[in-house]
Amino acid sequence: MTEVLGSGLQVGVDVGGTKLLAAVIDGDGQVLASHQRPTPAPQRPAAELTDAVVEAVRWVAEGVRVEAVGIAAAGLVDAAGERVVFAPHLAWRDADVRADLGDRLGVRVALDNDANCAARAESIHGAARGASSAVVLTLGTGIGGAFVVDGRVWRGASGMAGEFGHMVVQPDGLSCECGGSGCWEQYCSGSVVARLAGLEPSTEAGAVLARSARSGDARVRDAYAEVGRWLGRGLANLVAAWDPALVVVGGGASAAGDLLLEPAREHLAHHLVGAGHRPTPPIVPATLGPQAGVIGAAVLAASDLTPPR
Amino acid sequence: MTEVLGSGLQVGVDVGGTKLLAAVIDGDGQVLASHQRPTPAPQRPAAELTDAVVEAVRWVAEGVRVEAVGIAAAGLVDAAGERVVFAPHLAWRDADVRADLGDRLGVRVALDNDANCAARAESIHGAARGASSAVVLTLGTGIGGAFVVDGRVWRGASGMAGEFGHMVVQPDGLSCECGGSGCWEQYCSGSVVARLAGLEPSTEAGAVLARSARSGDARVRDAYAEVGRWLGRGLANLVAAWDPALVVVGGGASAAGDLLLEPAREHLAHHLVGAGHRPTPPIVPATLGPQAGVIGAAVLAASDLTPPR
Repeated sequence: MTEVLGSGLQVGVDVGGTKLLAAVIDGDGQVLASHQRPTPAPQRPAAELTDAVVEAVRWVAEGVRVEAVGIAAAGLVDAAGERVVFAPHLAWRDADVRADLGDRLGVRVALDNDANCAARAESIHGAARGASSAVVLTLGTGIGGAFVVDGRVWRGASGMAGEFGHMVVQPDGLSCECGGSGCWEQYCSGSVVARLAGLEPSTEAGAVLARSARSGDARVRDAYAEVGRWLGRGLANLVAAWDPALVVVGGGASAAGDLLLEPAREHLAHHLVGAGHRPTPPIVPATLGPQAGVIGAAVLAASDLTPPR
Repeated sequence: MTEVLGSGLQVGVDVGGTKLLAAVIDGDGQVLASHQRPTPAPQRPAAELTDAVVEAVRWVAEGVRVEAVGIAAAGLVDAAGERVVFAPHLAWRDADVRADLGDRLGVRVALDNDANCAARAESIHGAARGASSAVVLTLGTGIGGAFVVDGRVWRGASGMAGEFGHMVVQPDGLSCECGGSGCWEQYCSGSVVARLAGLEPSTEAGAVLARSARSGDARVRDAYAEVGRWLGRGLANLVAAWDPALVVVGGGASAAGDLLLEPAREHLAHHLVGAGHRPTPPIVPATLGPQAGVIGAAVLAASDLTPPR
């Protein structure tokens, strides 16, 4: 690949359940070019998904000298950042993604979970920039999330940290896809807003619902308020344990802004242990939107090819 | 103070609600000498408590060249490790403990919360030694705890991390002294074992109950099993969020060993998200017992006088 746009450029690829977004990212986290295509279905051979990623990278990086490629995958990634261990919506099955793509692309490849990449992006170039520590949540189908310290995502001993959505907030509560019941994400996510508002969940639901709420639709406003209350309650647990300097909330549901975040702030302040003897961390909206995943994948690729624990 | 026992010695002081334990600790975490006295009541002047600590240090360190003194306080300590911010059972009220004791003792002084000190001790010299990360819990009156990474305690943005006992496990559940309801420590602590077994909670209750349980007392065994189940459920939340390599359980309730820890292991494995795709961290008993606080205070004093966040 020849240099056109400049040096020090990375490609980030967000491999989601329905679509695959590839982008050329500069050192300031700016998206210089992007390309989107459908993700091959999970029942297709794994090689088709790998091919699609390779093609998307080549397409978006045409004429660009790429330093490294970062992959943000919608699934569990091992602690070493080598393999996609489990990903119900992707064709990769315990796949050695980092080595395979490295061979195919001829550049260094880094790999991490998509929620971790989004959190990393917000911490370096977005809403959590400069914060000594932050909990970053993405409210979509469920709750994606990560804890970030000094710009580094805490990935855990087995790479599985940040499964905040499966902390139980209601024993013997609503059933969850994980096999458990009463998980936080059954009470607090973009899908829950849609469900409470009587809408079919979809990728566009977040924007549609936020518009309805702002134009005064009471049922939708109530849905955001209810999810916001559960957001605050769950955050009170996370803040009690972790005491972060900041909380960042992104994902489709965050399009409603303070309609969601104000009830969350009230309930966090109300339920947090030690109120009066400690600051309550601010809850702010994410700033990078749906590009957070590709930006965070590029940050990982640029900084260190093994995701730090 | 003249050198008798050797160089590189620290004094650790555990300032608890009822008693004050001071000990000379060597670089291997061994207790070379110790001294215990009652803690002045919280309604007495703060200077009395400071005097008591000074006297305990002088008593135990008679003839010892002390490098530094570490204080483990039963209360909230600020992020800088300078002040005791809030401590319902101590006379110190937003007190500048580190500077005051440093002036009085003429040596460097370090300060941290007692649960953090206990976790630090277990991570350097105890059950979590060598673990890349660990959740360390102390089950006593409530749940003390800390998260440790590479031997460093995560203290949080305001020094308040590790309040695991006040994560809500049962919305609108049992009332808690913190003002909230349904807090984990209302279902899982040494006091809860005593309550379920029909015994008055006390500092000796742990040992008494463990003996009764081992000699076959069904009511006491049931109490440990019930608390063990809640231990496992709560740990499933912490492990989902944090993914530590190890869980260490200490405090009075841990005297019962597997009578408490086996149900906890079963329930952690049952409730943990992603079971089958990840290791379940082992739950092991703490090894340093009631000396963990003084040892951890000494470790802090030896390593770095500002507790790392």
